[in-house]
Amino acid sequence: MKRDRDRELKARALKVIPNGMYGHESVRPLPAGFPQFFERAEGAYIWDADGQRYLDFMCAYGPNLLGYRDARVDAAAARQASLGDTMTGPSPVMVDLAETLVGMVTHADWAMFCKNGTDTTSMAMMAARAQTGKRIVLLAKGAYHGAAAWCTPHPAGVVPEDRALLRYYDYNDADSLEAAVRAAGDDLAAVFASPFKHDSFVDQALPDPAYAHRARALCDETGAMLVVDEVRAGFRLARDCSWSLVGVQPDLSCWGKAMANGQPLSFLLGSDRCRVGAGSLYVTGSFWFAAVPMAAAIETLRIIRETDYLEHTIRLGDRLREGLSAAAMRHGFGFRQTGPSQMPIMLFDDDPDLRVGFAWAEEMLVRGIYVHPWHNMFLAACMTDADIDMAVAAGDEAFAAVKARRDTLTPSPVLTAMAAARSKYAREALA
Amino acid sequence: MKRDRDRELKARALKVIPNGMYGHESVRPLPAGFPQFFERAEGAYIWDADGQRYLDFMCAYGPNLLGYRDARVDAAAARQASLGDTMTGPSPVMVDLAETLVGMVTHADWAMFCKNGTDTTSMAMMAARAQTGKRIVLLAKGAYHGAAAWCTPHPAGVVPEDRALLRYYDYNDADSLEAAVRAAGDDLAAVFASPFKHDSFVDQALPDPAYAHRARALCDETGAMLVVDEVRAGFRLARDCSWSLVGVQPDLSCWGKAMANGQPLSFLLGSDRCRVGAGSLYVTGSFWFAAVPMAAAIETLRIIRETDYLEHTIRLGDRLREGLSAAAMRHGFGFRQTGPSQMPIMLFDDDPDLRVGFAWAEEMLVRGIYVHPWHNMFLAACMTDADIDMAVAAGDEAFAAVKARRDTLTPSPVLTAMAAARSKYAREALA
Repeated sequence: MKRDRDRELKARALKVIPNGMYGHESVRPLPAGFPQFFERAEGAYIWDADGQRYLDFMCAYGPNLLGYRDARVDAAAARQASLGDTMTGPSPVMVDLAETLVGMVTHADWAMFCKNGTDTTSMAMMAARAQTGKRIVLLAKGAYHGAAAWCTPHPAGVVPEDRALLRYYDYNDADSLEAAVRAAGDDLAAVFASPFKHDSFVDQALPDPAYAHRARALCDETGAMLVVDEVRAGFRLARDCSWSLVGVQPDLSCWGKAMANGQPLSFLLGSDRCRVGAGSLYVTGSFWFAAVPMAAAIETLRIIRETDYLEHTIRLGDRLREGLSAAAMRHGFGFRQTGPSQMPIMLFDDDPDLRVGFAWAEEMLVRGIYVHPWHNMFLAACMTDADIDMAVAAGDEAFAAVKARRDTLTPSPVLTAMAAARSKYAREALA
Repeated sequence: MKRDRDRELKARALKVIPNGMYGHESVRPLPAGFPQFFERAEGAYIWDADGQRYLDFMCAYGPNLLGYRDARVDAAAARQASLGDTMTGPSPVMVDLAETLVGMVTHADWAMFCKNGTDTTSMAMMAARAQTGKRIVLLAKGAYHGAAAWCTPHPAGVVPEDRALLRYYDYNDADSLEAAVRAAGDDLAAVFASPFKHDSFVDQALPDPAYAHRARALCDETGAMLVVDEVRAGFRLARDCSWSLVGVQPDLSCWGKAMANGQPLSFLLGSDRCRVGAGSLYVTGSFWFAAVPMAAAIETLRIIRETDYLEHTIRLGDRLREGLSAAAMRHGFGFRQTGPSQMPIMLFDDDPDLRVGFAWAEEMLVRGIYVHPWHNMFLAACMTDADIDMAVAAGDEAFAAVKARRDTLTPSPVLTAMAAARSKYAREALA
């Protein structure tokens, strides 16, 4: 593949951005062939800086729900932009949007808008502490809840005080959760949970109903707030909070990424049980009351309510899963596709350092399919059966190509270093 | 003034948003007549939900630098929007923007982009700790650096651990700063400073060069990072970091609000002295690499470099200051306008509970001029001499009206409660 312009951009970036790139969209922990820069996006496709097109199973790591530059959402955004965006006060669309969300999400009695996913998880933590007057917050080991000092997975620049009141339990293990709740004594403010286990590098797991119900019961018993962090999965599993699928309603839920189909918006939803605490916070941001992303969210939510975007995406996800599974079997690979089929992760058996997964992702990339070797992926509602057929055909060829060069594969040095740092931190922090 | 729709929106909001509104754009701590919701913005004007127009001296609390919906910036944003915004990787415009900033800001060797002002101040703190391996951070008492748990001015939901490693000094008092530095011993990571003292409720003050130079010397001596928080004032005082005006270059500077003329973007700039620390952080956000605000910033920065927007804004600010000063004198008011004239705060003598300031702001509002009674304001570069004439004429009438009803004024109960809470917190935190 052509990489001339990408290489030139990377070289320029290295001078004016630390390491040339940072954060979740850095390709340093990806196979060397992955392009860093993208020129253009439309529907389910992205074009790199050298003009090459990919069917994009990352969907901008979540924001792309309906398709890049969805005409309906973009028209709503453009209408609002012709009036005003960030002004000296919010637009009436903020009230419309809050009412819409309260109408759609069972547990929600109120909404507070912000920008980053981290804003909403941080606000949830503060609201729970303000509401309960207690301090300890429980998180599942290995779960991602943002990149502020209290939650970033790579704790450079973090001091022990940032996490002194956090405690950890094992996702889907009700006894582990209960033990952590008991250990918190009378000082438990909140229990955080992802809608499903969507940690990087490992098989995903849907929530065990027994665990989710125990979480609810323990919060009811202790007065702690139950927080479901929907930032990644919101409205990709259900048209309500994801835990409605297992019959559990949280007190707080955190949303972001796809809520305005790519426009910058996140929000915290809460029940009346946490209204006073949330209302006591002073939290804000320069662009939190911007009207354009809110208008885009109102239209995105209309499409969520009125179309079969969800059933369509699940059907395509199932079809992708079946097609790749059959192809992997034909070529003799143990290939694990876990998580909801519309938010899959794909991992190879007997691949502890991910060298096989990396090679397969590279082979997909050269065939015009962008897959991630260790992070959950996303299907977009604009994808078609033809897109899935193309991905499955590419997958079949990619399995064959990896099989042919399997003995020559070597581990990624970047990934090896990351894994070592991560396990060192995990040993220290979770000891 | 008509308030029917605003009242109806407020009543609806009260049901679906805690207290109906939150954060810096809430009008609860403003005079009762201030509208909460705005329908439209253009140039220097905003229209409330009841269709009434105001000349807006808040400029969205900063983001409006050139004029709402500036045609040049909006065209740049629209061009980029037709390509892509939030994608699976950044656009090449990120590199262009980083190069532009490094070219414009003397101390900057690199840039990292984010969304909120709080993102950039939080990243500065983490980068300084990562770079130095030290922990203590010095802040000026009363300065605003964002609304996360470590810095929000109203600490509901905050635990003592969030601020255990912060220490405070008096802005513009070099000896107070030096004492705080000495007290930090060998554990000082960073010294934060605003470009000028722009705290709420009090007279503003430009930086004393002796203080700024001492800050630099103390950081050089101890190895700590000097951080200038330009989020509010960036490119409103200079076409470089504001402290270039007093001949001091920081190691890190935090920018936001006006950098893309209203599009959501903030960033951290740093010198090579802090590149390794910044590069070690894992910080990120779903929309941090969005291309549209970056394209808007590139055009905003071009206008900053190539036009007299700054000199024009300062000239209008001076003219406003002179006109209001003369009017206040005519009516016998002690009226203090402090800070740079393009970012003024306006306070009355003998007005400890701000009842006079509130009344004057109300009288300005009914005359179509939106001023703030206790927060610094902002002029926009699109304002004209005619706008300023109108504001001065309204000011003259407003002084007369306040004089006529001065004996009937009462303090704002909301403000009184806020001041009590603030001084209680200040006593506890700064004891």
